[in-house]
Amino acid sequence: METNAIKQAVLLKVTAAKEASRALAGMSAQQKNNMLAAMADALSQNTKEILFHNEIDVEAAGQSGLSPALLDRLTLNEKRVADMVKGVKDVILLEDPVGQMIEELKPSIEIDVKKIRVPLGVIAMIYESRPNVTVDAASLCLKAGNAIVLKGGSEAINSNKILSKIISEAGVKAGMPAGAVQFIDTADRNAVLEMLQLDNMIDLLIPRGSEEMVKFIKSHTAIPVLSHGKGLCHTYIDKDADIETAIKIAVNAKCQRPGVCNAMETLLVHKDIADKILPRLCQIYYDNGVALKGCTISRSIVNTMQEAAEEDWNTEYSDLILSVKVVGSLEEAIAHINKYGSMHSEAIVTNNNAAADKFGTEVDAAAVFVNASTRLHDGSVFGLGCEIGISTQKLHARGTMGIKELTTTKYIVKGNGTIRN
Amino acid sequence: METNAIKQAVLLKVTAAKEASRALAGMSAQQKNNMLAAMADALSQNTKEILFHNEIDVEAAGQSGLSPALLDRLTLNEKRVADMVKGVKDVILLEDPVGQMIEELKPSIEIDVKKIRVPLGVIAMIYESRPNVTVDAASLCLKAGNAIVLKGGSEAINSNKILSKIISEAGVKAGMPAGAVQFIDTADRNAVLEMLQLDNMIDLLIPRGSEEMVKFIKSHTAIPVLSHGKGLCHTYIDKDADIETAIKIAVNAKCQRPGVCNAMETLLVHKDIADKILPRLCQIYYDNGVALKGCTISRSIVNTMQEAAEEDWNTEYSDLILSVKVVGSLEEAIAHINKYGSMHSEAIVTNNNAAADKFGTEVDAAAVFVNASTRLHDGSVFGLGCEIGISTQKLHARGTMGIKELTTTKYIVKGNGTIRN
Repeated sequence: METNAIKQAVLLKVTAAKEASRALAGMSAQQKNNMLAAMADALSQNTKEILFHNEIDVEAAGQSGLSPALLDRLTLNEKRVADMVKGVKDVILLEDPVGQMIEELKPSIEIDVKKIRVPLGVIAMIYESRPNVTVDAASLCLKAGNAIVLKGGSEAINSNKILSKIISEAGVKAGMPAGAVQFIDTADRNAVLEMLQLDNMIDLLIPRGSEEMVKFIKSHTAIPVLSHGKGLCHTYIDKDADIETAIKIAVNAKCQRPGVCNAMETLLVHKDIADKILPRLCQIYYDNGVALKGCTISRSIVNTMQEAAEEDWNTEYSDLILSVKVVGSLEEAIAHINKYGSMHSEAIVTNNNAAADKFGTEVDAAAVFVNASTRLHDGSVFGLGCEIGISTQKLHARGTMGIKELTTTKYIVKGNGTIRN
Repeated sequence: METNAIKQAVLLKVTAAKEASRALAGMSAQQKNNMLAAMADALSQNTKEILFHNEIDVEAAGQSGLSPALLDRLTLNEKRVADMVKGVKDVILLEDPVGQMIEELKPSIEIDVKKIRVPLGVIAMIYESRPNVTVDAASLCLKAGNAIVLKGGSEAINSNKILSKIISEAGVKAGMPAGAVQFIDTADRNAVLEMLQLDNMIDLLIPRGSEEMVKFIKSHTAIPVLSHGKGLCHTYIDKDADIETAIKIAVNAKCQRPGVCNAMETLLVHKDIADKILPRLCQIYYDNGVALKGCTISRSIVNTMQEAAEEDWNTEYSDLILSVKVVGSLEEAIAHINKYGSMHSEAIVTNNNAAADKFGTEVDAAAVFVNASTRLHDGSVFGLGCEIGISTQKLHARGTMGIKELTTTKYIVKGNGTIRN
């Protein structure tokens, strides 16, 4: 297709989504759950067809030399399709946020003012590799009453196409407004560029992918963007920490799953406790295969550590590497975190309540953990039932984002011929 | 000053504000109210000095040919200073949002998770003309625990300088962290450009001024922007409307104060009631000096109306001008509003609950009014005690914004050596 035809096709799809979003906004939880149940059934019944189309993608990707990790993310099998189906069923169990009263207002005159939760309208998702995002994103957005425009990566185009076709058709049969699920079925870059222009129709953009991709999108659109933030997280072991607790948490935060955003990248230890804790803790890290980079003082205690450079404090390793710094005070720890942290998840280990409170107040982060591992920052651990990602933005959504973050608010005002005097 | 020196000066001020914001975040409502009370006193006691500096601005503005309206906005007198003082005292009465529990979470493991309201950090305000904004903005931001960076218009520079000096000094004497109130005391454009670059330190930008100014700012910064939205508001008179109620509301929405954002710009009337209502209503409009522009059908009923062109449906007159359109159905009214409206304030007059509900659900706006005037969309009418503006954005803040919109959230998680399994 030539550029104009592609842009026209995108415009038509987004317009149809906007249209559908009006009707979706008025649907009850029951109606939406019926749609979702039909989608789950259809996915289950069409597993073979899904796997057939996925194989086309996997074969092409193998020939084009996609890395084994990405190839694994792309590949579906019966178990993974069943997981998708379970994902949709989990969304059915989520409470419908639409219509919830958020705030009781006490107007200064005799009118009834309610602030309620309403759908955003049209949500566009731009993502890479994993085909399950197609189903996860669509079901969450629909449950929150939004229409969705999906733009997956070119390497997964056949998988995403069949998945979106199946859920869209099943949804429509079960009462979903036609157009509520749109799939942009071209790998042409102009399709994304056109989407980024449609700020009068797309209400929210959710990019999932590399930091560069997210940056590019943010700087090329007037559509609000909700993105998963980078995680450069710290654990600070205070002088009043319980040593066993500190070791348990510091090991978990680094080793349990080092590649994710809420894993620890830098350990801060108060000078009064460093002697007692670092030798033992570092040995455990070594036993777990962690490479350690220390400041001068910490290396005077454990001399096997490599020397940390300034850039280490700024690095999200996402790997079994940890930088270690001894600090002179709680204040120094807070200042270090506020300087180098990514405002994601920050932990303190202490039995001193005043220190915990000061840390909780002055550390500028989406979540602060007291005597707990940063790895716990997660929508399902927190009881949200789902997670769209973890935001390090301060506006609209901060920290783990659930289905509520896919909504906005509306004032509904009822009067009786009431006017302004 | 040369460009580099200006940029350096802005950087130092914003850095000092960031530093101060850490301490402000931990202050109690009482501590903040003490600061505000000291500011109110100091403003009151220094009224003469304020008026002296304001006169310098007013004289210069008069010579430079500022319009009488803008000159009036710039001019202070004893009454206006007293109003500022009262404004600060009103902020003291507002409930402190900081520390409020927003959400009770039910984690899936044994940890305590609280989502609480916390200050944003540093708020920058870029505004024009009115010196009272200096005091209003500073007091609201401080009450919400934020440091503030003020950049007023060049025409009010002497007034703003003395006002910010007085409140900053009085605040510091009463315990405010030094640096919490910063005033950018240069009219040089590079100062604003430098501010827009500091997205690692400024957490929120609030521009107040022309649509062009706000647009420029939004497209030149990565700092989140909270702005007052344009208002192209409608009133729809349904076929099931009470005629007297409809007339009362439609007249109020247009005539009570036509220059503001929540005044009506377009009247929509159902065809079944147009005959009965338009002749009387239009006469009242004429009596109030309103110029009317009608669609073909409405002009067949009231032939004195001018003909409305397509651009009229897109125009925010902010004046005693009204466009009038007869629609065939509720659906047509909703479609018209969603096409031309600015998602600000939209009203329906009807005694039909189903019609009111449909309108409330399908009209995409920050506030929907049933049998009430759009002019009621206001923070003090809604009981917020203050208003920063009315947002037509959907993320973070929608509709009238109060002190809560100057905060963000933080998860505070407490465990007992709790880790992720």
